[in-house]
Amino acid sequence: MPDLSRLLSPRSVVIVGASPTPGALGNSVLRNLERHGYAGDIHLINPKRDTIDGRPCLKSIDEMPQGVDAAVLAIPGPAVLPAVQALAARGVGAAIIFSAGFAEGGEEGLAAQAEVARIAHEHGMVVEGPNCLGMVNYAAGVPLTFVETPALELEGKPAVGIVSQSGAMAVVLGTTLMAKGLGITVSVSTGNEAASGVEDYVEHLIDDPATPAIAMIVEQFRKPARFLALAEKARAAGKHIVLLHPGTSSAARESAATHTGAMAGDWQLMKAKVERAGVVLVDSLEALGDVVELAVRAKPVRRGGTAVLTESGAFKALTLDLAETIGLDLPAMNGGTADEMRAAIPDFIPVSNPMDLTAQALVDPDLYRRTLIPLLADDNFAALVFGIIQTDPATCARKFPAIIDAVTALDPQKPVIFAGIDDGAEVPEEYIAGLRAIGVPYFPSPDRAFRALRHLGRLAERDFATADAAPVALDLPSGVIPEYRAKQLLAPVGIPFPAGGFAASADAAKAIAARVGYPVAIKAQSAALSHKSDAGGVILNIADDAALDAAWDRLFANVAAYDVGITLDGAQVEAMGKRGVELIVGARNDPEWGPVILAGFGGVTAELLHDVRLLPHDLTHDAIVAELRALKQGALLDGWRGSPALDVDAVAQLIAGLGRVLAGTPSIREIDLNPVVVYPKGEGVVALDALILAE
Amino acid sequence: MPDLSRLLSPRSVVIVGASPTPGALGNSVLRNLERHGYAGDIHLINPKRDTIDGRPCLKSIDEMPQGVDAAVLAIPGPAVLPAVQALAARGVGAAIIFSAGFAEGGEEGLAAQAEVARIAHEHGMVVEGPNCLGMVNYAAGVPLTFVETPALELEGKPAVGIVSQSGAMAVVLGTTLMAKGLGITVSVSTGNEAASGVEDYVEHLIDDPATPAIAMIVEQFRKPARFLALAEKARAAGKHIVLLHPGTSSAARESAATHTGAMAGDWQLMKAKVERAGVVLVDSLEALGDVVELAVRAKPVRRGGTAVLTESGAFKALTLDLAETIGLDLPAMNGGTADEMRAAIPDFIPVSNPMDLTAQALVDPDLYRRTLIPLLADDNFAALVFGIIQTDPATCARKFPAIIDAVTALDPQKPVIFAGIDDGAEVPEEYIAGLRAIGVPYFPSPDRAFRALRHLGRLAERDFATADAAPVALDLPSGVIPEYRAKQLLAPVGIPFPAGGFAASADAAKAIAARVGYPVAIKAQSAALSHKSDAGGVILNIADDAALDAAWDRLFANVAAYDVGITLDGAQVEAMGKRGVELIVGARNDPEWGPVILAGFGGVTAELLHDVRLLPHDLTHDAIVAELRALKQGALLDGWRGSPALDVDAVAQLIAGLGRVLAGTPSIREIDLNPVVVYPKGEGVVALDALILAE
Repeated sequence: MPDLSRLLSPRSVVIVGASPTPGALGNSVLRNLERHGYAGDIHLINPKRDTIDGRPCLKSIDEMPQGVDAAVLAIPGPAVLPAVQALAARGVGAAIIFSAGFAEGGEEGLAAQAEVARIAHEHGMVVEGPNCLGMVNYAAGVPLTFVETPALELEGKPAVGIVSQSGAMAVVLGTTLMAKGLGITVSVSTGNEAASGVEDYVEHLIDDPATPAIAMIVEQFRKPARFLALAEKARAAGKHIVLLHPGTSSAARESAATHTGAMAGDWQLMKAKVERAGVVLVDSLEALGDVVELAVRAKPVRRGGTAVLTESGAFKALTLDLAETIGLDLPAMNGGTADEMRAAIPDFIPVSNPMDLTAQALVDPDLYRRTLIPLLADDNFAALVFGIIQTDPATCARKFPAIIDAVTALDPQKPVIFAGIDDGAEVPEEYIAGLRAIGVPYFPSPDRAFRALRHLGRLAERDFATADAAPVALDLPSGVIPEYRAKQLLAPVGIPFPAGGFAASADAAKAIAARVGYPVAIKAQSAALSHKSDAGGVILNIADDAALDAAWDRLFANVAAYDVGITLDGAQVEAMGKRGVELIVGARNDPEWGPVILAGFGGVTAELLHDVRLLPHDLTHDAIVAELRALKQGALLDGWRGSPALDVDAVAQLIAGLGRVLAGTPSIREIDLNPVVVYPKGEGVVALDALILAE
Repeated sequence: MPDLSRLLSPRSVVIVGASPTPGALGNSVLRNLERHGYAGDIHLINPKRDTIDGRPCLKSIDEMPQGVDAAVLAIPGPAVLPAVQALAARGVGAAIIFSAGFAEGGEEGLAAQAEVARIAHEHGMVVEGPNCLGMVNYAAGVPLTFVETPALELEGKPAVGIVSQSGAMAVVLGTTLMAKGLGITVSVSTGNEAASGVEDYVEHLIDDPATPAIAMIVEQFRKPARFLALAEKARAAGKHIVLLHPGTSSAARESAATHTGAMAGDWQLMKAKVERAGVVLVDSLEALGDVVELAVRAKPVRRGGTAVLTESGAFKALTLDLAETIGLDLPAMNGGTADEMRAAIPDFIPVSNPMDLTAQALVDPDLYRRTLIPLLADDNFAALVFGIIQTDPATCARKFPAIIDAVTALDPQKPVIFAGIDDGAEVPEEYIAGLRAIGVPYFPSPDRAFRALRHLGRLAERDFATADAAPVALDLPSGVIPEYRAKQLLAPVGIPFPAGGFAASADAAKAIAARVGYPVAIKAQSAALSHKSDAGGVILNIADDAALDAAWDRLFANVAAYDVGITLDGAQVEAMGKRGVELIVGARNDPEWGPVILAGFGGVTAELLHDVRLLPHDLTHDAIVAELRALKQGALLDGWRGSPALDVDAVAQLIAGLGRVLAGTPSIREIDLNPVVVYPKGEGVVALDALILAE
């Protein structure tokens, strides 16, 4: 893989299309380099100039010295391809292409982009873009972008790396993070990703000790498997990756295609996989900035409850509502804490969580410290949020210093967050800076604070353990594997099917019926027959041998009538099972994202409600059970209004079995077991059908 | 009802507990009056002082002149009651009680508050509080609160009235609205509402021409019926009432009780009724401020689509996702608009909504005007939102003036909103003020802009028409009315029941069976028998006369065995009906909120999902159908995956019938028809049971 450092920390830079005209791209790039005091060599290329602002200017790329690290192409689209060729010939290590109109611009553009990619790979050249805004390495003082970009002081600031396909969003996020008083190590926009993608830059930033967290805005991962591996690596290294990924709506997915040439992907699958890898997925720019700030500024968010110190009873009620909505746990204080709290506050104030201090702190600012002590010591709480009424600078003067002093003195080892209740209140910058300096994020809205906390709380609660059961390698032919074969292959793995077996003749069928007992069902078997029932290929409730003989003939006749081209291998003969609750369980090995299992309730209502979940294939038994309980109708599993509790453990074992097969047999594309019938606790589960599609 | 103007616009004020000590309540109140230059008489009462700051001070209330308008009680709780008595004796028109520890403080406090209420009613005195922060009439320059409150310039500002039970929230909301450059006419906190409640102040503000919108924060309406009538009046007057009402969680409802002595209410019922009355219900302080600002600053939000002008493709995708989530319609431009748009923008920019202008406006600021023209003219759009990248003051200077000039020149007759995409960007105040001056609300986050727009959009889309069908007055005994009587009463109204009737003897039963045809069911009838089935009081599928004779005896025997104390009137004899989809339909006449109808799907899943809705009793046929379609499983009504479309019109007629009965018969507490079985379109609906509970 090409050396990104030649792009991100170049010792020399060439601006192709340098210009003396203010506002021209080639001029803005030069201005930025000067603004940051770039120390490396700067080469300028412009066929019409000898010098630009006193700097020598070359007529063409061919006049350049060999081995310049990075080139910025500030030229129109049509001129890009020849320029890239020339740059490659001069051994340039990296090229930034601003121009649009490539993959997102139809046939011709697509071809041009492919050619750029070919050259890049042939010469091991890094290519950023096309259709990007370049990158800024704030840490090294290297701005390779035409967006006016002041230098940024990183000293003493928690820092974040930005990796975005959209250049505009990289700029937008940068503005937001800087406003939060955060540093930015590197900000990269990858645009159409002709040769280098978000995955490459994420890998670089994971290895960068100066970058504790990475904020990403992605419309499509072009190398999902690689990203997942990197996300695992980041998690192991204790680095947060926070991701904003549009595409919950089909409209957004279509829009992405016309925008960065990204193709619509399966958003739910992406979500299941990146979360499994430890990524925090957010749904708005606001949340992206808030979660990243909490991640890099405060003490680590652990699993546990949250304590809230506030100054209004009504706000307390609003907080209880929001907590229920987003699943934030606001436990009661443990006994000892409640006593200490009681002793710390006036009698007329009831002790509770959220703790409403009323307006008392206005006359007794030490109240914050006295109430903070027991809450920080209480193991019921993994985090603490101040919900404070700020009003005006005079009021702030009575509250902020008291809170800042209290937190400083108590040096909490759990995250403490300050949230202003009154959005828009004039708060002196010094107070906000004072909070940030002691690791307390400042939020202008409590809702944003609680949501950000919940995002990292969910991450802390996530069970990353993987099932230790051994993968199962099945030896499969490619193509559709019919029911009877699929059942023969999957049964040994512990997937339960109805008693029965495959019969090539009526006599064989009767032998099986004798073994499993009547009534039985027979089902036509042929790889070519994908919809048995439509073909009259399923006959149920066969009572005895005579009926079975008749049914056997009818079955073959039905299928022949349905499609004379289909020759049956025979029929699957099975005992009729008793009724139970219908589930749907399927396994899929996505060529890009890898193995995933879909599980949920069957039936019309479930379909209507999309009551299914995508499960990683390697979850532990407990994690699978937790996922099943999280279904909209999950309560049915534990018994609901007199209906019996269902055998959720048996369902989990079936799903785990599928997971082992997926893990051990990469050639599998799909396994479909529907319907799967689950019985009351202890009575197990049975998959009525089975179909495998293999490569 | 007492005269609120003596509280809100007093010609004279007395401070009971006046004090020279800075920070003391009685001193802060005086400071505020001076700060606002209060022009009326100010009386001070303090037994230990002759003068305070050179103002004469009386020893006791009894020394006061008669007929002072408003009294502020800056004294401890125990001293309040005697003071109120004395004030009443001096003919004071209004009293503000800050002290806590009344209804929210247990038995004793409850009694004291009741006594305050008694005195108030006896003397026609307005009482604000106890447990409140007072009120500020900014328009009249009267601050009766101890919270330091600067005067507020209202000239040229859209104004809002604030009515909040929580004093802290009134202050918080005031801060937020002022930060939005809005004016506030009156801000009142009602606390425990011993004698005067939010309803009284809302009525006053509806009649106040200077107050176009009212922002409310309420934990419990103590006079729901009155508030609903006022909300209707406000809607008729074209005034918005925007309400924040905690209580979606049971925890919040309990908290409210300990806070302002408010008792837990039925939040869903409140929601159904206030929305029917035209109130906009929001779920956060942020949304409350945002919706109020949009309501008073921009052109009225009409029903219709929204156009978005932005500068990033990724933001466009995020917007499409959010729009789907919140139900915001982003229609395509009509043909003509698309052509004009095409002509107004560079070729490389695709035409779409949201319209992504890319960074082009930086070099061509007139782009905003050129693209605004067709969008404002397009009837597909009822509102327009700018989603702009602000970055820094220099960038703002290139964008804001161009947008402000364009909007000023085009003078749009639909709401135009400005939303900054990059939260935290430094935006010069002058630009924000410039937007506000031309009626363009400024939002720091596009999500907040879209959500606020959606809130008012839903209001515009709401169908406020009422059914014109005549109310039906039933003559009812009080208590439980058994099935057979209930069916006799409701059938004439058009509620469909199974064919059959009431029989007092087996012979009468057989006569009915002969009429309706076998098989039949018989159901034991007695007001005392509330659970027929448990008592073996329901026998189904009776095939013929002989079986009916036997069943009749068994029925009476079963009930006698169940409870020998119950004497049956007889039995309801009905034809067995065919299977259909089970719904639940019930009617209720809430003593506080009035009539409401509950409708939804029956069965386990529906219960699990709470798939029911509360319908106002007077909806039109179409509105009822729309409500039914809005059920989570609503798609079942129109047929789903081959299942037949159901007779939703018949269901709506049944519900409308119940509504007419509720409207005409106030003595009804409850009507229960469950289960109600609906059949395929054209085949109607039938209520299998019927029970009426009347006062």
